[in-house]
Amino acid sequence: MTELKTQVLSQARAAKQAAAKLRTIGTEQKNAILRAMASGIAEQRAAIIAANAVDLEAGEKAGLTSALLDRLQLTDARITDIIASIEKTATLPDPVGRLLSSTKHANGMTIEKISVPIGVIAMIYESRPNVTSDAAVLCLKAGNAVILRGGREAAHSNRALRDAMLSRAGAAGLPENALTLIENADRAAVGHLVQAVGLVDLVIPRGGESLIRAITEQARVPVIKHYKGVCHVYVDQYADLAMALPIVENAKCQRPGVCNALETLLVHRQRAAEFLPRLGELLKDVELRGDQATQALLPRAKPATEDDWHAEYLDKILAIRVVDSVDQAIEHIETYGSSHSDAIVSDDHATQAQFAQRVDSAAVYINASTRFTDGGEFGMGAEIGISTDRLHARGPMGLDELTTYKYLLRGSGQIR
Amino acid sequence: MTELKTQVLSQARAAKQAAAKLRTIGTEQKNAILRAMASGIAEQRAAIIAANAVDLEAGEKAGLTSALLDRLQLTDARITDIIASIEKTATLPDPVGRLLSSTKHANGMTIEKISVPIGVIAMIYESRPNVTSDAAVLCLKAGNAVILRGGREAAHSNRALRDAMLSRAGAAGLPENALTLIENADRAAVGHLVQAVGLVDLVIPRGGESLIRAITEQARVPVIKHYKGVCHVYVDQYADLAMALPIVENAKCQRPGVCNALETLLVHRQRAAEFLPRLGELLKDVELRGDQATQALLPRAKPATEDDWHAEYLDKILAIRVVDSVDQAIEHIETYGSSHSDAIVSDDHATQAQFAQRVDSAAVYINASTRFTDGGEFGMGAEIGISTDRLHARGPMGLDELTTYKYLLRGSGQIR
Repeated sequence: MTELKTQVLSQARAAKQAAAKLRTIGTEQKNAILRAMASGIAEQRAAIIAANAVDLEAGEKAGLTSALLDRLQLTDARITDIIASIEKTATLPDPVGRLLSSTKHANGMTIEKISVPIGVIAMIYESRPNVTSDAAVLCLKAGNAVILRGGREAAHSNRALRDAMLSRAGAAGLPENALTLIENADRAAVGHLVQAVGLVDLVIPRGGESLIRAITEQARVPVIKHYKGVCHVYVDQYADLAMALPIVENAKCQRPGVCNALETLLVHRQRAAEFLPRLGELLKDVELRGDQATQALLPRAKPATEDDWHAEYLDKILAIRVVDSVDQAIEHIETYGSSHSDAIVSDDHATQAQFAQRVDSAAVYINASTRFTDGGEFGMGAEIGISTDRLHARGPMGLDELTTYKYLLRGSGQIR
Repeated sequence: MTELKTQVLSQARAAKQAAAKLRTIGTEQKNAILRAMASGIAEQRAAIIAANAVDLEAGEKAGLTSALLDRLQLTDARITDIIASIEKTATLPDPVGRLLSSTKHANGMTIEKISVPIGVIAMIYESRPNVTSDAAVLCLKAGNAVILRGGREAAHSNRALRDAMLSRAGAAGLPENALTLIENADRAAVGHLVQAVGLVDLVIPRGGESLIRAITEQARVPVIKHYKGVCHVYVDQYADLAMALPIVENAKCQRPGVCNALETLLVHRQRAAEFLPRLGELLKDVELRGDQATQALLPRAKPATEDDWHAEYLDKILAIRVVDSVDQAIEHIETYGSSHSDAIVSDDHATQAQFAQRVDSAAVYINASTRFTDGGEFGMGAEIGISTDRLHARGPMGLDELTTYKYLLRGSGQIR
């Protein structure tokens, strides 16, 4: 075993021991720990900003794009947001100990299904240092030990945040090793972590396609991915176009760089001539790429290629295709979509129902913008990510999704 | 790409197309399909038994143990059971389309969380041919396409069962390729199947440790394992021994070969002298292996080694350890257990509560036998296996656990 592997496995083993202790900590104490973590960050605000400045300087020298540098930056306002977010999480209901179902066996034994922590969660992410605190706090609130592995470009920031969170948490009752940051920059550390069967219970990667692919390829413990969103809006034959226009504009333009933003618009052929020119007027600063029918109606649209239907632009670019029917729209979404968030605009109930049933996405919208796929909007209070997987958690993942369950059976001597 | 890989992926792709069709099939039609599958088996009973005889003969020649030959055999009575089990599944509630939660956004949009099929489920199993029909029927009832890969020793039996199930199912509305049996005996086929990311949504292996390990090592799609059960009963200081004796006997002896049977008994030191000799009398035909304290009280007990604490005997053998406290019992279970089913016998509420909270097993029992960990006993109506994993499904997996969910949002033009 390499030294690095020994080191990572020993961190994971320590986290597992911490997870056993975390299972026994009550709601009030968990919330006190979270508030202590917030205080620690408040106290060490200057140190965190100084550490972040080191990362920013290195990032500039390394030629990071301004978008990446922006993601990396921890301003005073962002630290205030981090603190507020931790304090808010402390006020949320405890996801552990919920009675999920309860039945009585014919022999009198009660069978309760109760939410419990998952155990040890490894979070692997890229540049945003605020994930360090967000992920730590949500995992701990759900009673899980957490192992963080951030991007190397944010190494100083992540370390400063970790130090600040831990500075007061131990005194508030956080078990040792319940929050670990893997600092070794060697990429092989990630491989060892995601193969630590029996020590790590869940891996949540957040980042670009190459990070997600590498982890999926290497992982031997369960992974819940936060992958891409190739989201669609379908403007149906029976659409209220006055409703469709703001929905498409909002889904595309309100925040184009996020996963629930619109990427491909599908328009029913019978409404295309009426709808597309009006849309072209509305989306003046959006680059349009369309099929032949779209180009005929919107001369400024560039020709769309096969790649465009697959694209998650995360930018002010919109692919447009004219379709013959709701069937063709659904087939397009089945073929090119990422099962994230897809919407129909239609006033026809049968068409709505067909779309809702057949489109197999985490969130299916009828007459609303795809931009609502978000833990906060869904009423979860907080979000650790949006699962594009199908097992355990689908769509926004809040605190409840960071728990599993066990059965507790109470008898009076029952035998089979 | 090898020919075998091309073939497996093309089967998986066809299954995925079938899954899209299955999503749109209603409850009545699914049940009609199940009843048609039962009729097909009833009609082809003789052909199934003849095919099974070929497997049995080959198995005898290959020197399979009598236990394995028994598992492999399809008697007339067993086929009657298979038919009854399919017909019963047809009467169970549809796990798809359940409204799991429903909220309203402040903007008036409704947010519904609805159960939907997982998609394509691959079931990889060993000798018992009844898994072929059980797994097919449960997956289809939950709206999933299913790819079966049975053991080569049951190849003729599995093929005959598949043919019988399909003989009438198509006419009843089963989409083509919704039920596939991978017949190629090459082990590499399993590797291709469990790496078919984007085509296969879930792999459920059922079988021995080496099968499970091989699949976990190779899989790139999510796996829910049905692994071993190293189950414990802890007889506490405050146990009612008149209750403890039948619980231990039942947990060990009622059916020793199953995963929820007792393997290691833990006894509080203060009750050992009173309890163990009485237990020794009761379990006359059980081989006992104990620590030193146990051997002093039960001279016929052989010395237990470290291996015994890890062992899933699946036989009339019981490991016994005397412990000083509930803490030591819990630590033993944490160290050696498999998080399957563990019980405490105690009349003390604080001790019960401590055990219930700290023992991190799928099923934790207070004053009852571990033998109840079973989908039928838990009121699920049917069971595809018992998950020893923590994500998605834990403990007995019934029809509900063969579904996932999606969010359906209904608005009237809401934008963010």
